[in-house]
Amino acid sequence: MRLSRYFLPILRDTPKEAEIVSHRLMLRAGMIRQQSAGIYSWLPLGLRVLNKISNIVREEQNRSGAVEILMPTIQSADLWRESGRYDAYGKEMLRIKDRHERDMLYGPTNEEMVTDIFRSYVKSYKDLPLNLYHIQWKFRDEVRPRFGVMRGREFLMKDAYTFDLDQAGARHAYNRMFTAYLRTFARLGLKAIPMRADTGPIGGDLSHEFIVLASTGESEVFCHKDYLDFATPSVDTDFDSIPGLQGVVDKWTSLYAATDEMHDKEAFEAIPADKQVSARGIEVGHIFYFGTKYSAPMGATVTGPDGAQVPVHMGSYGIGPSRLVAALIEAGHDDAGIVWPDEIAPFDIAVLNLKKGDAGTDGACEELYKALAAKGYDVLYDDTDERPGGKFATADLIGMPWQIIVGPKGLAEGKVEIKRRAGGEREQVSLAAALDRFPGRSA
Amino acid sequence: MRLSRYFLPILRDTPKEAEIVSHRLMLRAGMIRQQSAGIYSWLPLGLRVLNKISNIVREEQNRSGAVEILMPTIQSADLWRESGRYDAYGKEMLRIKDRHERDMLYGPTNEEMVTDIFRSYVKSYKDLPLNLYHIQWKFRDEVRPRFGVMRGREFLMKDAYTFDLDQAGARHAYNRMFTAYLRTFARLGLKAIPMRADTGPIGGDLSHEFIVLASTGESEVFCHKDYLDFATPSVDTDFDSIPGLQGVVDKWTSLYAATDEMHDKEAFEAIPADKQVSARGIEVGHIFYFGTKYSAPMGATVTGPDGAQVPVHMGSYGIGPSRLVAALIEAGHDDAGIVWPDEIAPFDIAVLNLKKGDAGTDGACEELYKALAAKGYDVLYDDTDERPGGKFATADLIGMPWQIIVGPKGLAEGKVEIKRRAGGEREQVSLAAALDRFPGRSA
Repeated sequence: MRLSRYFLPILRDTPKEAEIVSHRLMLRAGMIRQQSAGIYSWLPLGLRVLNKISNIVREEQNRSGAVEILMPTIQSADLWRESGRYDAYGKEMLRIKDRHERDMLYGPTNEEMVTDIFRSYVKSYKDLPLNLYHIQWKFRDEVRPRFGVMRGREFLMKDAYTFDLDQAGARHAYNRMFTAYLRTFARLGLKAIPMRADTGPIGGDLSHEFIVLASTGESEVFCHKDYLDFATPSVDTDFDSIPGLQGVVDKWTSLYAATDEMHDKEAFEAIPADKQVSARGIEVGHIFYFGTKYSAPMGATVTGPDGAQVPVHMGSYGIGPSRLVAALIEAGHDDAGIVWPDEIAPFDIAVLNLKKGDAGTDGACEELYKALAAKGYDVLYDDTDERPGGKFATADLIGMPWQIIVGPKGLAEGKVEIKRRAGGEREQVSLAAALDRFPGRSA
Repeated sequence: MRLSRYFLPILRDTPKEAEIVSHRLMLRAGMIRQQSAGIYSWLPLGLRVLNKISNIVREEQNRSGAVEILMPTIQSADLWRESGRYDAYGKEMLRIKDRHERDMLYGPTNEEMVTDIFRSYVKSYKDLPLNLYHIQWKFRDEVRPRFGVMRGREFLMKDAYTFDLDQAGARHAYNRMFTAYLRTFARLGLKAIPMRADTGPIGGDLSHEFIVLASTGESEVFCHKDYLDFATPSVDTDFDSIPGLQGVVDKWTSLYAATDEMHDKEAFEAIPADKQVSARGIEVGHIFYFGTKYSAPMGATVTGPDGAQVPVHMGSYGIGPSRLVAALIEAGHDDAGIVWPDEIAPFDIAVLNLKKGDAGTDGACEELYKALAAKGYDVLYDDTDERPGGKFATADLIGMPWQIIVGPKGLAEGKVEIKRRAGGEREQVSLAAALDRFPGRSA
């Protein structure tokens, strides 16, 4: 992409309304624009990151056996009356009347609708297990939306729903999602620690929040330090292996980890002092087994092996891609701006032409731009008239992982500069060597 | 994808509520489920098609120079008061009050919001031209939603908006979209003919609907037969060439073509009788230049080359991917079900195992499934217990373009059958030859 033809509205000043660093940087980097309280437009750079995150989430959901659907944003209130949640949900639910005065709502979550889909089609235990997920915009009418997309009103959520014949099946479904979440966050470059969450009236041990440690986190969390070095389940994980996945979950729940809400001071202090981590955290995922809470009142039953009708056991599993954009910035930034993990960066490489209009730099940049694109990289070519200082600042602000800097002085000696955003290392190399640094890859 | 692990709820009976063939087939093929009047869930098969269409739309928008953003679904009423459309829009607009009693709405279109984004950031003619588009769900509260996703209430729309300094610039922007639309519909396997549309108070000739001929179309259309043989602008089209694109548009508007609304009987009858096409059509796109209609009242101005502030000239350009799913089925089906163009089909190849549990057919199918997937094909492997007749019917109903049928009898002679959905041709070939028929491709 040529920057002169892109839409990247950088703000040079720090917006006053932004309380946390991710919000400030997303506004400054031209990633989002607030349209109303807690409601954002995603500008081109922000949308690229959001899509990269969503795609990683999707790949890991698919790998674990979940099947993607897409439910609508507007739902009928009648479904929520069946589960009893229409009156219970409170003011966070955006309630709507259509032109025929029917009660509708903007879905804050989809347990009722997915249960309705399930009961319409699935009649036998032979069609289980089933995991349906979607990545769709949700609306929760927060009293005080804040922190940008970290706590917005309209937000993107991946929500998966599992259906099993019994609790044992539901536990394996839960373990699949648990494992998929570990892989997802690791691929996003995040250390996310599963922490036991409140199960309320459902009881049991099948509810976890996945928490990223970040000094700007919203809540206090406590955990054993060894979690930070645990290995992520591999790409070859067999999601059908019941003992295999139970082993993953057992390992990742073997040590102490708790949010403020569930904190047990005594248990935490029993950990050796040098292993005690007390920090702030951001919730980036939540998984939850809730048994027959929706299937029983809504009549989502299947015929079991013995011919009896039984309500299915369900769980729900959420990750918010829009919130993750902010969480990634909270976890990865410095004074100059955002530092993206390579897999998430909106572009792989920036090419900075320090003297637009100079035949030498123009030619070298064009060559780099075209050759790198042909190798399968997303390249942002800064071909604008801006001065070098502005170009450097922009490339750092928006977090370009690799920057190839092409100026007339260096070029006179046959050199361009490669800069690594994360560590700041710089290297002078020939144009050919710069190209060789980036091997071809499939698009 | 193994069908035993997929979610493909086929209906054997024809749903009574569906009036048109695309709606019937989408319900029968388990592509969609109605959740409320005019509001649908996209089941796995339907979502795959919807995404394929959206991606082609996106690729052609990007190729033409448009830049993707994503605006939210919920908008503030205040923006629409600025343009004067809040009161004018009528009951099709879904109006909402949030918890603080602020007037909000579910966007039926985005002229106001995109104009607001533009005016927030763009101040100079040097930043023009600009084309911002998004692919987002819209809501129009139709009195009588019908025909499935052809005329739903919640629907997916690609809407692009162009910003130019003057009318000449806007004309080139219009021509870019005109050309991109021709390419888009051709890639979708559709013959779409641009027909002059009413420009209302704006005047001029810069409004076209793109119409697909289909016997089940919603409106009557009239055109010169030669349009059906016009060549599509090539992939190498230079979207920066003003005369080049004007040539494309001139050619594609050189002959008579009109919807019922704009029909000129006399002009039509002046066409040689054997060139007169009178048919029914489905509107699949609409492009529209509207000058300063929104920029003037909303203060979206730029500094021109002479230093004066001028309101920008705008246009909007819509394609409905969800409606296109239905249009493609209206244009491509037979008594057995859907006939997808290869590029749009939810899977490329179906492998039908006629005797699940037989070591020979199981082994051959596994080999085909894995080898074809490794070559970059999306394969649906019917590994269910269903009888052969049911498997044939399902593969045809959902429109699998290529079907490899593996039965014990054929296999005893070392043969499998390849069936082409579109023409019905069948061929007996060896397993190795079947694999060779599908060359490797990049995923």
